[in-house]
Amino acid sequence: MNTRIVRTAALVVAVLGLHAAPASAQFAKPEDAIKYRQSTMFLMSNHAGRLAGVVRGQRPFDAASVQADAALIETLSKLPFDAYVAGTDKGAPTRVKPEIWSNPDGFRNRAAEMQKAATALATAARGGSLEQLRPAFGELGRACKACHDDFRRD
Amino acid sequence: MNTRIVRTAALVVAVLGLHAAPASAQFAKPEDAIKYRQSTMFLMSNHAGRLAGVVRGQRPFDAASVQADAALIETLSKLPFDAYVAGTDKGAPTRVKPEIWSNPDGFRNRAAEMQKAATALATAARGGSLEQLRPAFGELGRACKACHDDFRRD
Repeated sequence: MNTRIVRTAALVVAVLGLHAAPASAQFAKPEDAIKYRQSTMFLMSNHAGRLAGVVRGQRPFDAASVQADAALIETLSKLPFDAYVAGTDKGAPTRVKPEIWSNPDGFRNRAAEMQKAATALATAARGGSLEQLRPAFGELGRACKACHDDFRRD
Repeated sequence: MNTRIVRTAALVVAVLGLHAAPASAQFAKPEDAIKYRQSTMFLMSNHAGRLAGVVRGQRPFDAASVQADAALIETLSKLPFDAYVAGTDKGAPTRVKPEIWSNPDGFRNRAAEMQKAATALATAARGGSLEQLRPAFGELGRACKACHDDFRRD
């Protein structure tokens, strides 16, 4: 490997505080996994909030931004579930319930329902009308709530 | 508007703790803007860390996952800069420097350089070889570092 390139890569890693995680894990420590899933959930919630304003008539329906918000939610919906690694129920403040690990099939099903609803929302958003957006947004909200009810502490 | 749909939307908003932000702002309070940009940066850093492992030869080069990581970084690179709203230098722990607001052109240029490097990285990743990935990853790292040097406290 070219020495200069190796040095540059090492510098980048050091400067950014990146962890070149072992191949078996994307997270160097439990806190990283917790922050990772919380970051994805926070971004999804923020962009869902933008769509909520549109659905409630408090923000104008702008087709391009509605599509962008929904597409981003779909992309993000695929990320968090690999971060519920065993042993990441502590290490940073987190509202996970132990049922995530004691009922993995139930959790996986809830995750799949949400991802399906997020994909349907992105499809509906591409339709370009508020009438298509509304029910798809409602479905996503129900899928979020169902998972939070089962697997997240109040 | 259909009453049931309005009720459902209101329920979704309440349950998820969503803020239907005013049209003029995506963030109900400074803390939300700070968490939003930190969430995007954290996710970018995590996925850059995965690529760092590949570039350094510590993780295998898997074309599909390299492409997915780079595409995600490109998507995320577009998000944080609308969240450096005036007045969001406090409200939650943050490492922003005041230069973000006193030198907005400089900040915008650094952001644009990073976004350009992220797009180039995604393009390089689609090429499917480690040789293409490496220099593009180095460029992104330099763009990240340049902005952090100027606009982020140690």
